[in-house]
Amino acid sequence: MSFNTFGRVFRVTTWGESHGPALGATVDGCPPGVALSEAAIQPWLDRRRPGQSRYTTQRREPDAVEILSGVHEGRTTGTPIQLMIANTDQRSKDYGAIADSFRPGHADLAYFQKYGLRDPRGGGRSSARETAARVAAGGVARAVLAEMVPELQITGYMVQMGAHRTDPARHDEDEIARNPFWCPDAQAAAAWASELDAMRKAGNSVGAVIEVVARGVPAGLGAPVYGKLDADLAAAMMSINAVKGVEIGTGFGAAALTGVENADEISMGAEGPAYGSNHAGGVLGGISTGQDLVVRFAVKPTSSILTPRASITRAGASVDVVTKGRHDPCVGIRAVPVGEAMMACVLLDHLLLHRAQCGEGVRGRIG
Amino acid sequence: MSFNTFGRVFRVTTWGESHGPALGATVDGCPPGVALSEAAIQPWLDRRRPGQSRYTTQRREPDAVEILSGVHEGRTTGTPIQLMIANTDQRSKDYGAIADSFRPGHADLAYFQKYGLRDPRGGGRSSARETAARVAAGGVARAVLAEMVPELQITGYMVQMGAHRTDPARHDEDEIARNPFWCPDAQAAAAWASELDAMRKAGNSVGAVIEVVARGVPAGLGAPVYGKLDADLAAAMMSINAVKGVEIGTGFGAAALTGVENADEISMGAEGPAYGSNHAGGVLGGISTGQDLVVRFAVKPTSSILTPRASITRAGASVDVVTKGRHDPCVGIRAVPVGEAMMACVLLDHLLLHRAQCGEGVRGRIG
Amino acid sequence: MSFNTFGRVFRVTTWGESHGPALGATVDGCPPGVALSEAAIQPWLDRRRPGQSRYTTQRREPDAVEILSGVHEGRTTGTPIQLMIANTDQRSKDYGAIADSFRPGHADLAYFQKYGLRDPRGGGRSSARETAARVAAGGVARAVLAEMVPELQITGYMVQMGAHRTDPARHDEDEIARNPFWCPDAQAAAAWASELDAMRKAGNSVGAVIEVVARGVPAGLGAPVYGKLDADLAAAMMSINAVKGVEIGTGFGAAALTGVENADEISMGAEGPAYGSNHAGGVLGGISTGQDLVVRFAVKPTSSILTPRASITRAGASVDVVTKGRHDPCVGIRAVPVGEAMMACVLLDHLLLHRAQCGEGVRGRIG
Amino acid sequence: MSFNTFGRVFRVTTWGESHGPALGATVDGCPPGVALSEAAIQPWLDRRRPGQSRYTTQRREPDAVEILSGVHEGRTTGTPIQLMIANTDQRSKDYGAIADSFRPGHADLAYFQKYGLRDPRGGGRSSARETAARVAAGGVARAVLAEMVPELQITGYMVQMGAHRTDPARHDEDEIARNPFWCPDAQAAAAWASELDAMRKAGNSVGAVIEVVARGVPAGLGAPVYGKLDADLAAAMMSINAVKGVEIGTGFGAAALTGVENADEISMGAEGPAYGSNHAGGVLGGISTGQDLVVRFAVKPTSSILTPRASITRAGASVDVVTKGRHDPCVGIRAVPVGEAMMACVLLDHLLLHRAQCGEGVRGRIG
Repeated sequence: MSFNTFGRVFRVTTWGESHGPALGATVDGCPPGVALSEAAIQPWLDRRRPGQSRYTTQRREPDAVEILSGVHEGRTTGTPIQLMIANTDQRSKDYGAIADSFRPGHADLAYFQKYGLRDPRGGGRSSARETAARVAAGGVARAVLAEMVPELQITGYMVQMGAHRTDPARHDEDEIARNPFWCPDAQAAAAWASELDAMRKAGNSVGAVIEVVARGVPAGLGAPVYGKLDADLAAAMMSINAVKGVEIGTGFGAAALTGVENADEISMGAEGPAYGSNHAGGVLGGISTGQDLVVRFAVKPTSSILTPRASITRAGASVDVVTKGRHDPCVGIRAVPVGEAMMACVLLDHLLLHRAQCGEGVRGRIG
Repeated sequence: MSFNTFGRVFRVTTWGESHGPALGATVDGCPPGVALSEAAIQPWLDRRRPGQSRYTTQRREPDAVEILSGVHEGRTTGTPIQLMIANTDQRSKDYGAIADSFRPGHADLAYFQKYGLRDPRGGGRSSARETAARVAAGGVARAVLAEMVPELQITGYMVQMGAHRTDPARHDEDEIARNPFWCPDAQAAAAWASELDAMRKAGNSVGAVIEVVARGVPAGLGAPVYGKLDADLAAAMMSINAVKGVEIGTGFGAAALTGVENADEISMGAEGPAYGSNHAGGVLGGISTGQDLVVRFAVKPTSSILTPRASITRAGASVDVVTKGRHDPCVGIRAVPVGEAMMACVLLDHLLLHRAQCGEGVRGRIG
Repeated sequence: MSFNTFGRVFRVTTWGESHGPALGATVDGCPPGVALSEAAIQPWLDRRRPGQSRYTTQRREPDAVEILSGVHEGRTTGTPIQLMIANTDQRSKDYGAIADSFRPGHADLAYFQKYGLRDPRGGGRSSARETAARVAAGGVARAVLAEMVPELQITGYMVQMGAHRTDPARHDEDEIARNPFWCPDAQAAAAWASELDAMRKAGNSVGAVIEVVARGVPAGLGAPVYGKLDADLAAAMMSINAVKGVEIGTGFGAAALTGVENADEISMGAEGPAYGSNHAGGVLGGISTGQDLVVRFAVKPTSSILTPRASITRAGASVDVVTKGRHDPCVGIRAVPVGEAMMACVLLDHLLLHRAQCGEGVRGRIG
Repeated sequence: MSFNTFGRVFRVTTWGESHGPALGATVDGCPPGVALSEAAIQPWLDRRRPGQSRYTTQRREPDAVEILSGVHEGRTTGTPIQLMIANTDQRSKDYGAIADSFRPGHADLAYFQKYGLRDPRGGGRSSARETAARVAAGGVARAVLAEMVPELQITGYMVQMGAHRTDPARHDEDEIARNPFWCPDAQAAAAWASELDAMRKAGNSVGAVIEVVARGVPAGLGAPVYGKLDADLAAAMMSINAVKGVEIGTGFGAAALTGVENADEISMGAEGPAYGSNHAGGVLGGISTGQDLVVRFAVKPTSSILTPRASITRAGASVDVVTKGRHDPCVGIRAVPVGEAMMACVLLDHLLLHRAQCGEGVRGRIG
């Protein structure tokens, strides 16, 4: 089956292919009366937009979002919001050579085996261009969250490129926007720049790890047991192109801890419960605790590379595939705003779900 | 909101608390005409059952499953299958002492903040006892899969306990059932035994990493882009108690690879496409490739420990919490059959979803 | 597919067959902290219970509901509520004679064609016994509604039996509970009694029309355009066994009106908008207006009759079918509490859905 | 909540307002490899298009559909199909006068009460223009059904306008396309023409009853018990603007029948079970029987009339509302192709759902 919708109350359906006339997102279930305009969404798209540095694809797309429905006189009406982004720089000829071959690491062969046919132009529906629609939808979610939970802040950044990790001791949030890698560690960013230049010249690519943190998340969000906040975040992040792993808080590192180490001790703070550590990453039992919500995901190296890789054609013949065209040497870079957008959508959905069952606000008060 | 259902066509709804009269699973959407009996499900429950070694909780539960509906004369009728498991060894008094305190690392406080009240007996709904219902549902899924895809095999095992990993070179599938850890590496199992004995005596606990592999998965399963096979697996595994991370194939390790290394090269094999490696873990673009489907998840150390940890009471007072009762020193052990069950349910759901949209079998043939 | 769940936030999954050991409902998404006990649900089941007059089946079922989960110390916890009702008076031998024949007007043949097998005992899953589970779930919904919207009242009654309609001028709500037909018109009830006695003796049966009215429904409930309040009510009522038509307000009668007649004129009342008539039945554009919500549904005559009807066997041979056993001569009678229960569930679901998107209360104020 | 999606596997999400730049439908879950083009969808839209006779609104809309995604080289790819229809003849000034008043019989006040604001231009989202998107989606469903069930035929027509019904004895399917009312009874059509001319001149309107018949529906479609084929049809038809009632087969008439009369007797025909009558309308127990599927729905008279009706303003003042602009004197006329489209979508969804659970074809064979 095809399943292009996520969310339960705040629902996002994306559509469109890499090389079709347009792509977009239909956002349903949005609260009414929220100030919204194209100008409010565009900045988020601009952050994901290709061609902004030599480290991302040189495809030139303005990624200008158009709101076709659901907003009247600058406010959401509570009806579906259609967000459309025209494709303007398709170069289908780039893909002529590979229409009959299957690129290793790409969805080409899997789509063909599933559907019996596929749109080979730029990967069709499996292209990372689909993520533009998520970012647009995330812009809507952010506008709502800004009204409902003004203290909420969502910040994404890259903590690993290839084998090189940032040093948390050097993290500086102000640094994130200063380099082309959304890297909070200036020293790491410099090293990555050299590494990525070399990769690009070698016709190769590297993977990355992204961290997205949400601060100011109200306690009590999450729908146990199969709509846990962390389960929904895991699905949301894993659904992003090229993502191969997701972890919450200490994540895989928690396997190596003892129970004594891993217990985030609780004390009574001025504004409610306070925690001595955050191994849990802000979620226990699938429900937010009010601590920082911390999610990390791994992005594999870009599969479109200039180095020939062995593959087969539709007829079953052997072929060496070289993926020309305009590609990101580290697709993880542009995944940063995408991860933030998914976080925003999932949080808003859970905020509305919580309101549905439990009404406004936190129900259980301490003290 | 509460959301206790997973799956889209093959849908499982679980219910029940740790210390209530019973718990169970309602399985809807099951194909009709499949041979099914309690005897077919019970062996899977027996594998998860507590009290089978000194390394798991000493709570004595027969975990006997009863089929209350959906089966007539030994075959599924296509109507909802109610699977009930009675709780027989509740000791609510074990929890009297902590009814008003919140155990660090547990869902106690989060549930209280969300709902304003909670069932403190054994964690209520957030107890790992809920996973018995998943394993029962997984038994139904396995019975269906055995008829629809006889060559499919699902195998789970532990690859890390605390800081100690198995050595893949020593993996032997026959070893898995020979030790109390579902460990494929006999040497590691011996080391784990010593370590876990020490932990248990010290009133402490450890985490673990579980790997679940499905062999013989047909190519073409998966519902792009928000019902990707790997996204659904990520949510399914992350929804298991104490899980903090999920990865597919090389997973987080892929971040450190180059595109050249990570490309699983394709050749033409006797029975269709063959791959030179499996970094992808059997999924590309959210669709199964026919390679082994490889999922790993991290389980944090058991939060119920005998070492006192600082916390607060409902009144906001400081308190040292010691969780007496009968607990697993490594809850990851019993997560192995749970992970297998989730894999079975997700695969069957996707098999039926694929049949809905694309009909029987793989559509795209090579050669 | 089998699809045994209804509702979006307040979700009810029913399970069980007529002649299995038990049947029940799993209620998910229920608000927490609501007072609930078996004693609060049982009275609703008692109203639907068979064997209370000579006009309903003589099967003796206490229909005693048991709450297996989701309630702690007399309050809902927000987790799934399992409601189980044991079957105690199965007489499977009643059905031996028809195991291989298909009863006209019943689901027998359709189930066989769909699933390739069926549970012939009492219709299995297609039996009207399934409606006991709905009534139990409706009891939960009523308990929640009583706290959230205390002024809400749901009343069902029969307005037509066979060809004989009640006269609205003679309707008296107090009369409803005084006769075995839930008939608000004492004169009609007397006539129906004679008619139904005759039908029963003749081995025949009659149809009925039920009206369910909800008073005190807040304005603003409904999820346009495919989750309209009236669309959800239509599905809810049509899903009840033997129902063949549903209408809202003036319903089919509206086809014969002119626009001038049909316009419910609006004026400003003391407590908000007031209406000069209620052809709309309390819903416009799929959203409640605050007027009485009026739904009617048609129930076909009981298909289980003692008069022989022509049919076929599984082998394709001709056969005359006489349905012995214990049957309702007018199954519409017991559909009254079922219709009320569906109304309660749908209204609560929409109340929670509205709260999800729009927050507490009506947003648009007049004056 | 806003809920603008219907279907479970073949899912349709519509978006757009009467006077926005465009409206459309996102169709997800469509089988791959089906021949599809704008030319295949346009004829269905042309049938619903306004301005084709003096009996429908004079708004001039070409209703030209554009396929923005999901089709490659003339075949569906299995990914979301975006169908966009530009609005070209908006005259927002027509609505300036009523921006602050609430039109009786319209959704104006209900939307305002729900959302706290609304798009008053042409009813915004509650406009019947939304049905153009349904018809476009229905065109996709028809293209798929034509390949999967070539013998399936869906035919809609009007059987009642105002108080005047057609005479089934005079029904002639060839007549349907010959008059502007989709009326199968030439004599009735002539009478309706006079009546409607009079209504239009009097600034009034009338209601209607539409019947939609599907022939060649395979036995076995339907998802008991809350996704019954008839329950889904009831919701689908009730979700159409101005619909106030839905019935299946004999419908409300069945209430007046006896069980002996209502039993559709079964015999063995050349191609399987045959029936002596079709009171059931092709559905028993929520599952298709293979007989003609017969659905009727009642459409209320157009609420936009030139005769003044009493209402209130947003400030609570009394006002007489006259709805100028371009309106249908009998909105039921254009509901005919809409009802057909909903039938097509629901049938395809159930065909795919059946295939998911039960595989290809009917499972239970007679003889």
